[in-house]
Amino acid sequence: MCPTERDSGPESWPAAPLPPTRESVLERAVMVLRAFDVKHPVLTVSDLSRRVGLPKSTVHRLVHEMARLGLLEITPDGMRLGMQLFELGELAPRSRDVREAARPYMEDLHEATGATVHLAVLDGVDVVYVDILRAKHGPRLPSRVGGRLPAHATGVGKAILAFSGPEVVTGRVAAGLPALTRHTLAMPGAFHRALQSIRREGVAYDHEESSYGVYCAAAPVFGRGGMPVAALSVTGTTHRIDLPRLAPAVRTAAMAVTRRLQASV
Amino acid sequence: MCPTERDSGPESWPAAPLPPTRESVLERAVMVLRAFDVKHPVLTVSDLSRRVGLPKSTVHRLVHEMARLGLLEITPDGMRLGMQLFELGELAPRSRDVREAARPYMEDLHEATGATVHLAVLDGVDVVYVDILRAKHGPRLPSRVGGRLPAHATGVGKAILAFSGPEVVTGRVAAGLPALTRHTLAMPGAFHRALQSIRREGVAYDHEESSYGVYCAAAPVFGRGGMPVAALSVTGTTHRIDLPRLAPAVRTAAMAVTRRLQASV
Repeated sequence: MCPTERDSGPESWPAAPLPPTRESVLERAVMVLRAFDVKHPVLTVSDLSRRVGLPKSTVHRLVHEMARLGLLEITPDGMRLGMQLFELGELAPRSRDVREAARPYMEDLHEATGATVHLAVLDGVDVVYVDILRAKHGPRLPSRVGGRLPAHATGVGKAILAFSGPEVVTGRVAAGLPALTRHTLAMPGAFHRALQSIRREGVAYDHEESSYGVYCAAAPVFGRGGMPVAALSVTGTTHRIDLPRLAPAVRTAAMAVTRRLQASV
Repeated sequence: MCPTERDSGPESWPAAPLPPTRESVLERAVMVLRAFDVKHPVLTVSDLSRRVGLPKSTVHRLVHEMARLGLLEITPDGMRLGMQLFELGELAPRSRDVREAARPYMEDLHEATGATVHLAVLDGVDVVYVDILRAKHGPRLPSRVGGRLPAHATGVGKAILAFSGPEVVTGRVAAGLPALTRHTLAMPGAFHRALQSIRREGVAYDHEESSYGVYCAAAPVFGRGGMPVAALSVTGTTHRIDLPRLAPAVRTAAMAVTRRLQASV
């Protein structure tokens, strides 16, 4: 992106397809968890049965055990994802470590530019947003912490892919290059050329590639091993945002985060 | 708290005890997830086997299925919690909704006071921190997003409990009032008197009750049904922080969040 995640959560961009075998209990539990999304935060047993394709009686037994274990919470209106998932998710090292390292530099970048600042990591062929500082003014962007978008369609994703190994880029191309707007780089040739240019310039631009009206400049953050582990971006909602002017600030902030990550024990 | 969560994560303050029966697969998977904490972000099969008390062969099979489903990630050094948990956790409505509503007012409070601002919700008999804006200067507080502390020992917890139903307070007392410092309200009489005073004043103070050297003022946030759903606090690390001066700002911000929550559809 930047931040144009569709609002429908796991459904439209599933984390990874599950194989169509007869599922284990654990697999069914994950199917139930994945049935929730931003637009469906509360689901009844009937809703879940329909969404995951399991009999109501099976879902009924399963959700009660999941509630007992803190994975779900039962409310008068149905089931919702439990606080324990929030706690566990906050412990996931790949989002947590880079967010902690990046936060002060994100604040500086936010203050210096007044723009919305995003931090994202690569997960498979997608990016997942791990932190967002929103601009005080202007329309609210559709991005969401925990939101997932195809990497090739976003500034942060292109910034990470440009400096990743060729197998990572090939994986994205093999998974397809879906067009989120008519500006998305949906052809492998144009996509590869864009990555070359990003490698040269150190910055990735997104001109309405993830969402109409949204523009951003992104730069990669590198970990201790020298590989990209995340990307930072600044985002605006009109073409009036002066991205070439903001690009050095994004690059500087991303380099500062890299320095911090590489210095930490 | 404020924010004095011990650094050891789920281990020292377990989300809820699991019954000592023969575990289901799902239960074992949750035991594996809970074995990770801030100090142990990466665990080998042997580590996990020891920490959850299951044979290595069982753990080995289990973690490989969990990795396939995106719950764990396998690294050269061992297993870590997967990004999918972060994604799911970000969808948990109880933390997500109040954080979204509160964030702009937290930023205002942060700017107006210069202090660290915390947002927490009640989960059972504990509070879980769902957002933190840290002071730019001064020592770093030990609080952590996703961290859990016994509610009675924190400003945010007392602010919520004071306005909750009597069964909620009774639940906390029945679970014990562990002393995190020598200032924690560890006796039921003193605890009940403190809640009365909080109900009168609309603000809860924490004078080194969760952690030595940490002081805070907290105020409750109410949901649509009129019950407290969260609390906001400002925190400082020395007794020089002027809490009575900051209390009206915290109350005002908490009331603004309440107004927002009660107005939203």
